Amino acid sequence: MKPDISPQELRNLIRSRQWTTPTSGSASGYLQANLVMLPAEEAFNFLLFCVRNPKPCPILDVLEPGQTEPIIAPDADLRTDLPRYKIFENGEYKSDVEDVSDYFDADMVSFLLGCSFSFENAMVAAGLPIRNMEEDKNVSMYITNKPCLPAGPFSAKLVVTMRPMTPEQAIRAVQVTTRFHLTHGAPVHLGDPHKIGIEDLDRPDFGDAVTIKPDEIPVFWACGVTSQLAATSVPLARVITHAPGHMFVSDLRDEDLTIL
Amino acid sequence: MKPDISPQELRNLIRSRQWTTPTSGSASGYLQANLVMLPAEEAFNFLLFCVRNPKPCPILDVLEPGQTEPIIAPDADLRTDLPRYKIFENGEYKSDVEDVSDYFDADMVSFLLGCSFSFENAMVAAGLPIRNMEEDKNVSMYITNKPCLPAGPFSAKLVVTMRPMTPEQAIRAVQVTTRFHLTHGAPVHLGDPHKIGIEDLDRPDFGDAVTIKPDEIPVFWACGVTSQLAATSVPLARVITHAPGHMFVSDLRDEDLTIL
Repeated sequence: MKPDISPQELRNLIRSRQWTTPTSGSASGYLQANLVMLPAEEAFNFLLFCVRNPKPCPILDVLEPGQTEPIIAPDADLRTDLPRYKIFENGEYKSDVEDVSDYFDADMVSFLLGCSFSFENAMVAAGLPIRNMEEDKNVSMYITNKPCLPAGPFSAKLVVTMRPMTPEQAIRAVQVTTRFHLTHGAPVHLGDPHKIGIEDLDRPDFGDAVTIKPDEIPVFWACGVTSQLAATSVPLARVITHAPGHMFVSDLRDEDLTIL
Repeated sequence: MKPDISPQELRNLIRSRQWTTPTSGSASGYLQANLVMLPAEEAFNFLLFCVRNPKPCPILDVLEPGQTEPIIAPDADLRTDLPRYKIFENGEYKSDVEDVSDYFDADMVSFLLGCSFSFENAMVAAGLPIRNMEEDKNVSMYITNKPCLPAGPFSAKLVVTMRPMTPEQAIRAVQVTTRFHLTHGAPVHLGDPHKIGIEDLDRPDFGDAVTIKPDEIPVFWACGVTSQLAATSVPLARVITHAPGHMFVSDLRDEDLTIL
């Protein structure tokens, strides 16, 4: 377990390539964000997609074309301050890179979207189980059969994360996560996974399967990976996203964006 | 007092010009919205302005260029279903009209933004005073000295509405309005108006002055008129907005968008 550091210190380590691993659990208490960068000519439609689907795509910050310094982290540079990125071209995955200075140009727009790391801290504080943390795995993610509202050319099925817990814990989890409306908020489903088109919980579409105990039910939250599916649902010349778990760490505190 | 009617019935009356007066207090319980229409080439920047300033400009719906049927009211037509509109050209007010079919074209984008009518119903239900209703006036609105976050070419000072009440009522009003985060939510200020650049409460910038009793303090909420100032802060070829009080009435209920 690394000692905790400030968001600025963490971003400086990442920028100088001294930190190349996932950001989960680091700079605890500060908002981490999903990143999507895409051509300015489709920026309105993609912003519209996020506005119409706020549960999976809660907007934390959007920058003008060519800008790389977010409002939520002055002095940061989105081209260098995430530990790992994914490059897509014409809708196809191309490569992982640690710096996108050679890929981002003045005609691209950057979107920062909320991430469930924010409410996981609050769930732990409330004594709720985060099974993937207990088992040192990535959270289980599934593509559901629920279509998001489309916008312009962008469409996607809703992607969800799943955390198993008892019904009593699920009720408490609804209360705890409701406050975090800009980081996915309350669950979108609980119980029978077939109701949302998930056939087998042991075979997630992304991340790892986790143990579900006999007295537990699966609880599902909207997931920011939905934004990646939407951004790559169209054969754009180039799309850049963070690599899973390798998020942008902002200067906002998790609590800054809560409603209550 | 007109008998209450459904949003669909109200929009049909408006469309056929049988209703040309303000919508406040009608189709009670249904979300009413501010309207801004502007050229598609600036739609991304204006959407960005709204995203960056969610308290005065909470986004309820945004349509693709040329579209006039909102998601939040299928079968409605934004060109005909508001009782009165304002036309601006090159940043200057031009005229009021009752139908914008001759002004809206395929290259314009429509924005529907939340309105404080939603939380006023909840305030009345909680026994809180709405002085302008008691005195049959328009709510008092003031341009503050607090700049919104700019986006592209758009900028504006924050506009606020003011409702006087006792400190005890103000505390309850914070609780009641916090739930309505997409219709301006909690107040932005209470007490000394000079702190936010308001020189004289008896001289509002829009609407009417109301009585403030000796035991009362002014309580200030972010106001959707901010979006009109922002849209007309740039000399765009054409901007269309609703006329004050003559809102778009949607099929969503006020409660549909509350957090808790």
